[in-house]
Amino acid sequence: MKTVALYAGSFDPITLGHLDIIERATKLFDSIIVTVAVNHRKEALFSGDERIHLIKESIKPYPWADNVSVEKFEGLLVDFAKKRNATALIRGARRVSDFEYEFQMALTNRRLAPNIDTVFLMPDEKYTFTSATIVREIAAWKGELESFVPKNVVAALRKKYAGK
Amino acid sequence: MKTVALYAGSFDPITLGHLDIIERATKLFDSIIVTVAVNHRKEALFSGDERIHLIKESIKPYPWADNVSVEKFEGLLVDFAKKRNATALIRGARRVSDFEYEFQMALTNRRLAPNIDTVFLMPDEKYTFTSATIVREIAAWKGELESFVPKNVVAALRKKYAGK
Amino acid sequence: MKTVALYAGSFDPITLGHLDIIERATKLFDSIIVTVAVNHRKEALFSGDERIHLIKESIKPYPWADNVSVEKFEGLLVDFAKKRNATALIRGARRVSDFEYEFQMALTNRRLAPNIDTVFLMPDEKYTFTSATIVREIAAWKGELESFVPKNVVAALRKKYAGK
Amino acid sequence: MKTVALYAGSFDPITLGHLDIIERATKLFDSIIVTVAVNHRKEALFSGDERIHLIKESIKPYPWADNVSVEKFEGLLVDFAKKRNATALIRGARRVSDFEYEFQMALTNRRLAPNIDTVFLMPDEKYTFTSATIVREIAAWKGELESFVPKNVVAALRKKYAGK
Amino acid sequence: MKTVALYAGSFDPITLGHLDIIERATKLFDSIIVTVAVNHRKEALFSGDERIHLIKESIKPYPWADNVSVEKFEGLLVDFAKKRNATALIRGARRVSDFEYEFQMALTNRRLAPNIDTVFLMPDEKYTFTSATIVREIAAWKGELESFVPKNVVAALRKKYAGK
Amino acid sequence: MKTVALYAGSFDPITLGHLDIIERATKLFDSIIVTVAVNHRKEALFSGDERIHLIKESIKPYPWADNVSVEKFEGLLVDFAKKRNATALIRGARRVSDFEYEFQMALTNRRLAPNIDTVFLMPDEKYTFTSATIVREIAAWKGELESFVPKNVVAALRKKYAGK
Repeated sequence: MKTVALYAGSFDPITLGHLDIIERATKLFDSIIVTVAVNHRKEALFSGDERIHLIKESIKPYPWADNVSVEKFEGLLVDFAKKRNATALIRGARRVSDFEYEFQMALTNRRLAPNIDTVFLMPDEKYTFTSATIVREIAAWKGELESFVPKNVVAALRKKYAGK
Repeated sequence: MKTVALYAGSFDPITLGHLDIIERATKLFDSIIVTVAVNHRKEALFSGDERIHLIKESIKPYPWADNVSVEKFEGLLVDFAKKRNATALIRGARRVSDFEYEFQMALTNRRLAPNIDTVFLMPDEKYTFTSATIVREIAAWKGELESFVPKNVVAALRKKYAGK
Repeated sequence: MKTVALYAGSFDPITLGHLDIIERATKLFDSIIVTVAVNHRKEALFSGDERIHLIKESIKPYPWADNVSVEKFEGLLVDFAKKRNATALIRGARRVSDFEYEFQMALTNRRLAPNIDTVFLMPDEKYTFTSATIVREIAAWKGELESFVPKNVVAALRKKYAGK
Repeated sequence: MKTVALYAGSFDPITLGHLDIIERATKLFDSIIVTVAVNHRKEALFSGDERIHLIKESIKPYPWADNVSVEKFEGLLVDFAKKRNATALIRGARRVSDFEYEFQMALTNRRLAPNIDTVFLMPDEKYTFTSATIVREIAAWKGELESFVPKNVVAALRKKYAGK
Repeated sequence: MKTVALYAGSFDPITLGHLDIIERATKLFDSIIVTVAVNHRKEALFSGDERIHLIKESIKPYPWADNVSVEKFEGLLVDFAKKRNATALIRGARRVSDFEYEFQMALTNRRLAPNIDTVFLMPDEKYTFTSATIVREIAAWKGELESFVPKNVVAALRKKYAGK
Repeated sequence: MKTVALYAGSFDPITLGHLDIIERATKLFDSIIVTVAVNHRKEALFSGDERIHLIKESIKPYPWADNVSVEKFEGLLVDFAKKRNATALIRGARRVSDFEYEFQMALTNRRLAPNIDTVFLMPDEKYTFTSATIVREIAAWKGELESFVPKNVVAALRKKYAGK
């Protein structure tokens, strides 16, 4: 049995919590596709291509990097998952309150694609409260970023907010 | 990569919701060990051996039955998981309120065995509210059981409560 | 359309929060049956008959008392509801955390009796945190009871714990 | 006792979950007013009149349709409820996380109109995770809609998103 | 030991629930700084200066007013807290669902400033469901405001919405 | 202003999470009374005196130990708090699901003693999922205990379960 799993999100930008989930997923599935959801109706800090670049840079140093690919997509996630023959959608289960929304999406996706299951993994507890939204807020006010995002992302955030 | 996953619980008795999780797990992992936790300090309706027998009977008709084994254990789950070279612990994610307890157990297990990860799967929504506790309560009052447990378990419950 | 609603609980003892729900229910339904669940396997502070007596005494002063009857039952609630031709089961929705258990019971009951619906009402917010369990604890330590239960119940609790 | 209940929402558009709640409400109350909240400050997919039309079309086939009327309103819900002599506000209790917001609205409404109570009903569990927001998202990406909304709404959504 | 605590929020406008928390905080800490977060990227009903004025007016009648100062700030809260030598950040713990967001902010702040702790206080239960958002909504539709905000704020809201 | 705070619990046994809360509390209050609730109706692993001894041993090495006393009590917590002139009850806010019970107790205590407020503090996130119940379970099965409880408690647990 060869298993392909999708890990989708907006990754604006990728955090240490996301990286932790990707590493855990590589131990359970043969191949992981990190899927950057771009939505032309929502404003983002980094463009889709910038986000893909930051993810690729972040995972490069790891031994499991070869089993991970990074792709951009816009549309219904299950349509993309079917095209890639994915058997699972990975979600990071950080907090209890995330779950009702996560359950809603997971059950909606299951109705649209009954053969693809959503799998919840837990990041290390030190990343429980890390979110890209808070990271952007801290960056905007020049706060300490090193314990929330990889080093290359710290640099990218510093540059993005340099003139503001 | 060959993956072994443990699905532990008290299964007193196995429900249609448990069966649904087992089936989903067989699509993601090469081998599933359904692990019946027996606790000599807690009273149970069915003995450990009866519970194992009911699970084996319930899964026998399914094409994926060959990838599933059923075992009894008492002690710390992670110790048993290490002995069986399991890479994952499967938990059914039925309800949001389950999660805080589940997170607590998952993080405790991770601290005791960092290489084994807990994976949450969602049963079909029609099993969201099925629990062994409620099943026993309905059985005690001779209520309808067919939409909650497999047929062999209906029979076993009827027999158990026949004289009461 | 004539509507009969059941309001079931253990009422060990009835609190001001329960009374508040009963009053609200009388404005929505033609007839309310307060249903005292007795369970010979669970220990209770007051006997089933004592609890019925305390409820009857508590509601007597109210103008809506004539539309409310009080009955004891043991078994599956939906079986009793069918016998009484009830169209609704009333539940007090006090706190968010109650809801998952309440949903589970409501959906189980619906599966057993599809024509009887569970209706959730909210007590006055000053009763949000009143529970019979806490009332018994306060009574055991001779604490102030007047803001939690009706006067006749204060007296009954004082008597119950007098010698202890 | 003749009871009038309001079931308010934005219904943008009506879903099968909404329909399920309306049907349940007709068994408990003599008359139901489905109340379409329009808010000129919020963008909607369908206009207030379109939403009313879709609701009327959706309920027409049902035997209980005669006890249900559909109205548009803008302002404070309790003011509208008083004008219509409503005794209850109906809310669908889909998920636990909805409840804190629902409780807040219900208690605020009670303070503004103490004689009108909020009543929570549960939709069939297969509609637990259906929301108008997700329906619009699926429609935008041409996904399957038939298991989420009535047929006339499927057609209206297809037309709305045809050129996009 | 002399203790300084910050109570930060947008206070758009201050409610009776906020006032209740401030009063409780004055009994636990020597000095309270009510900190009005202004965010030039978010639209507010009242300007930062108007909000400060309304808070100062609201607390003036109380005996503990001398231990409370009111300040405006923009940026990272912990930076402001360090400048003021605050030992604690006060948060009103109104509802369970607030907590996950609150925990996330509290843990993020702790990582940025390990010596400043977040302290949660509970308002009187009659303010559990009062929020500035709902207050603005009621004001917009000319509803009753007296049980939600201090008298001076009622007047300010009436004036603000007079011409709308 | 001199402040006395009570930190009550069963501490069966004290964990690193409890210690973390005690240390945080010493920075906010002049004097802390760790209050060991003994309940002769509930079975405990360690006796009241053993629990007090373990707490005293655990805090002795810390510079703030002089501001902390340890006492045993049975009864209503607010009665004990009044006798000790406490101004605050400290609670560790570990998890969202704890909160509804915590709120219930806090509001009940406030009604019984309006001048004593409950204050919630957060332990370090690495102790979020540590509980005395799980510690006892791990000890019973001879699991690793060092990352959950102080060293003296590890030894006491090992001894307690040595012959079992």
